Amino acid sequence: MSKQLVFGHQNPDTDAIVAAMAYSYLQNQLGADTEAVALGTPNDETKYVLDYFKAQAPRVVTTVANEVKEVILVDHNEAQQSVADRKDVQVVAVVDHHRIANFETTNPLYYRAEPVGCTSTIITKLFHENNVAIPQQLAGLMLSAIISDTLLLKSPTTTTDDETAVKELAKIANVDANQYGLDELRAGTNVDSKSAAELIDADAKSFTLAGKNVRVAQINTVDVNDIFKRQPEFETAIKADTAANNYDLFFLMVTNILNSDTEALVIGDPIAPVEAAFKQKLNSQQRLVLPGVVSRKKQVVPQLTEAFEQQ
Amino acid sequence: MSKQLVFGHQNPDTDAIVAAMAYSYLQNQLGADTEAVALGTPNDETKYVLDYFKAQAPRVVTTVANEVKEVILVDHNEAQQSVADRKDVQVVAVVDHHRIANFETTNPLYYRAEPVGCTSTIITKLFHENNVAIPQQLAGLMLSAIISDTLLLKSPTTTTDDETAVKELAKIANVDANQYGLDELRAGTNVDSKSAAELIDADAKSFTLAGKNVRVAQINTVDVNDIFKRQPEFETAIKADTAANNYDLFFLMVTNILNSDTEALVIGDPIAPVEAAFKQKLNSQQRLVLPGVVSRKKQVVPQLTEAFEQQ
Repeated sequence: MSKQLVFGHQNPDTDAIVAAMAYSYLQNQLGADTEAVALGTPNDETKYVLDYFKAQAPRVVTTVANEVKEVILVDHNEAQQSVADRKDVQVVAVVDHHRIANFETTNPLYYRAEPVGCTSTIITKLFHENNVAIPQQLAGLMLSAIISDTLLLKSPTTTTDDETAVKELAKIANVDANQYGLDELRAGTNVDSKSAAELIDADAKSFTLAGKNVRVAQINTVDVNDIFKRQPEFETAIKADTAANNYDLFFLMVTNILNSDTEALVIGDPIAPVEAAFKQKLNSQQRLVLPGVVSRKKQVVPQLTEAFEQQ
Repeated sequence: MSKQLVFGHQNPDTDAIVAAMAYSYLQNQLGADTEAVALGTPNDETKYVLDYFKAQAPRVVTTVANEVKEVILVDHNEAQQSVADRKDVQVVAVVDHHRIANFETTNPLYYRAEPVGCTSTIITKLFHENNVAIPQQLAGLMLSAIISDTLLLKSPTTTTDDETAVKELAKIANVDANQYGLDELRAGTNVDSKSAAELIDADAKSFTLAGKNVRVAQINTVDVNDIFKRQPEFETAIKADTAANNYDLFFLMVTNILNSDTEALVIGDPIAPVEAAFKQKLNSQQRLVLPGVVSRKKQVVPQLTEAFEQQ
């Protein structure tokens, strides 16, 4: 079998990086020849995680067809979130916890998706199903991915499978999940030192909704005013990003990880389906107030999808 | 949790019927409220299987949104092979062994695909993963599905997982897989008593290839001349079916299950990519000779897909 690359989505978060490392390790234990790579450099939270567990970040690639014929996707499936030249390689496996869209293959493949909080939770189960032990360092990384994706098991995406995996991985990694988890999440909320352009691109994904090119970005913080006191800077950055990438609409979630609320800044067109999706008009500052909303995947994208399709 | 319907593809074959019954049984053992239904009546082979193991055929439905909000798909995922009103319900789970295409969801879901010979092989593994015992009758049905899909483990789609499942299921069902399997396959090859219109529709699937509506039907037989001695009748039936359903191209595989060869009758437009896909011109009888070809999924559809996309 020839070598396969394993990678998560663009603008990688902790799960995108760690799930690739974990699944690659598992496949290699089972006899495959794979390498985990990433479609971008680690964000602040992921850097904290890799430092804490003394792990190396995967090599960053921008294309894959120059290296391999076959790839494995983790933590994503939609083409516009994946590697630029994906059409030139064969996707032989996917492990993911998102909706399926903009994904099509010519051949049968291995596809494992579950509606759980984190890809690393599914991979924890795959280690068990294949009777492969999870090494201590990898357990720490996978624990960190679940903490990141579920905001320490508080996101509505959280399932009992995530809770079970966190307990097990924390034990193998020998860390206190709650104490470590808060430190990890805080490490990702250092916004003052970054430009608006950096912040709106750090955790952002594109979606095609009823033909419209919609960008949904998320910034985690411990105080949403740390972002909104700089709103003019953010508006300028969003307009520049929108023009450069032909987005129709930019939806910026600013999420308080301590109280699990979001305020969203919405710029672009059309606004009507956005207001329909969340049953409120944009306020005078072009924002939506979204108490209890923390999950782009479960509390924003499905609502926008439905509203756009009903336009 | 409200009731969910579980079903396989239109024109159900043995796996489409049995995988629905097996997955519904498993889910109900795990606490769900599901019912296996079918998008058509059993074919001759499946009737033989159900009679042999004294099982009832699932209820036939043509729509589902009038009954339930959520459905589970087995043995297929492409919209044009599924229930007519699928867009009006939510697909919460898929268990399949085909390529993924024409499939898109708004929400995360459970998706389990593996590149093995039969959906019932994957479901055998799911019983084990969930520590649920397979009852004797169901084991016989699932064994029959694997025999059907893999032509008694001789199709190139066959994997070691299929072989392992056949051994295990035959033991639980207490049948000799080879002897029973040949009887089962022969039961599906009774072609003389059927009209061409029935035969070209019994195991047929539609594919959208580079915008063209392509129908690929398969007839299993123990002598391809049993079909081709009636070629004018088949051409008339294919032309009528094509006109009624707006197919661009009809590709009829006539497969000898004893020696694992196929001859294909090809009618419609465009012919050039078909000839490119199989590296031969249609002969004077509009047929392709395809030695060793038995699998639509692995030896026909990917080749056609690639050739159509390169036009």
